[in-house]
Amino acid sequence: MRYHKIPDETVRRLPVYLRGALHLSRGGVASTSSKQLADLIGVESWQIRKDFSYFGDFGTPGVGYNLSSLISRVNQILRLNTGHKAALVGVGNLGSALLAFPGFRTYGFEITAAFDIDRRKIGRRKAGVLIEDIASLGLLSTRGIHLGIIAVPEAASQDVANALVKAGIKGLLNFSPRYIAVPRGVKVITIDIAMDLARLPYYVSAGRAVEYR
Amino acid sequence: MRYHKIPDETVRRLPVYLRGALHLSRGGVASTSSKQLADLIGVESWQIRKDFSYFGDFGTPGVGYNLSSLISRVNQILRLNTGHKAALVGVGNLGSALLAFPGFRTYGFEITAAFDIDRRKIGRRKAGVLIEDIASLGLLSTRGIHLGIIAVPEAASQDVANALVKAGIKGLLNFSPRYIAVPRGVKVITIDIAMDLARLPYYVSAGRAVEYR
Repeated sequence: MRYHKIPDETVRRLPVYLRGALHLSRGGVASTSSKQLADLIGVESWQIRKDFSYFGDFGTPGVGYNLSSLISRVNQILRLNTGHKAALVGVGNLGSALLAFPGFRTYGFEITAAFDIDRRKIGRRKAGVLIEDIASLGLLSTRGIHLGIIAVPEAASQDVANALVKAGIKGLLNFSPRYIAVPRGVKVITIDIAMDLARLPYYVSAGRAVEYR
Repeated sequence: MRYHKIPDETVRRLPVYLRGALHLSRGGVASTSSKQLADLIGVESWQIRKDFSYFGDFGTPGVGYNLSSLISRVNQILRLNTGHKAALVGVGNLGSALLAFPGFRTYGFEITAAFDIDRRKIGRRKAGVLIEDIASLGLLSTRGIHLGIIAVPEAASQDVANALVKAGIKGLLNFSPRYIAVPRGVKVITIDIAMDLARLPYYVSAGRAVEYR
């Protein structure tokens, strides 16, 4: 399997397919078609078939996709079947919301460490996680953590990214609305909330119907 | 122009192109190629050209895209050139972070109303915005508000969506990780943070390089 040939856009859609498949599966459905999945998640059916074809396609013509094999296959491709530990930096409003966020468990994620610079927060617990001093950030890879979540003000985000990379982190989820530079071999995914909001007026003015993602 | 023919995936990428174009423009660049834009934002150049072709393409062969016309054209397509007022429901940790979030202004958004059910919060101000009682939610369209942001616990999100639709809201940004049902003509965009995190292990294991979105 040649993972390096997969377009980023395909990788971006895989969790969307996974969430749709989990939703159908929880509703008691055993198999689905690309058409049914397309209607649920708002991605076109040819796109779904094309994306799956990168991984050897796993549908049966005329029958569609068996949901439990689709779910386990996508989990395997995305390496979600082993569980992942993440460290959070920045326990402000956003960071606190992330620590309490139940949705991470769906995909096997757990925030097991949290860091801040605020002396009043350090040493306390939030959602069961001890808040540590960012200044004493040691190697995180030895604690089984290889993902980092950046929830600090924009001005501090690059420094925090540098510190996390130094601590052995290979994947960063960045909530500050700026481009972050990292060395080769480290992956940054930026969640720019404003950019998602920026799609809404298009649909409101055009009077379009519901989309699920 | 036939807006109803544009794929949702194209509309989803337009703000990504806009952010990239704004970034280059602020750096003093006057024009760009689909290749340069592609390298910056991590979308393939053929995809960029295809997406723009839905709107009659605005590049010049051999020259590329003039950034200021690209920016104004995309703003116009996304209806971002007029400014938009949004109401927030749920002033917990996430809601408070959203109220203080500076990134909304980039796209002409402003949160001008906030609602909660907590008596201790109602009547107070957060980031300059008065927190109102959700029980006394009146018509929001008369206040010039036509977008809603849902930042309440998952169990309450459908009820809040119903109330916002009744208040005249046509576009919803939903932060709860569940599918929300709305009438035809209302648009929901769900931000599922866990789903974005779910892409990270793929890249970390495969040892891929940086991507900007």
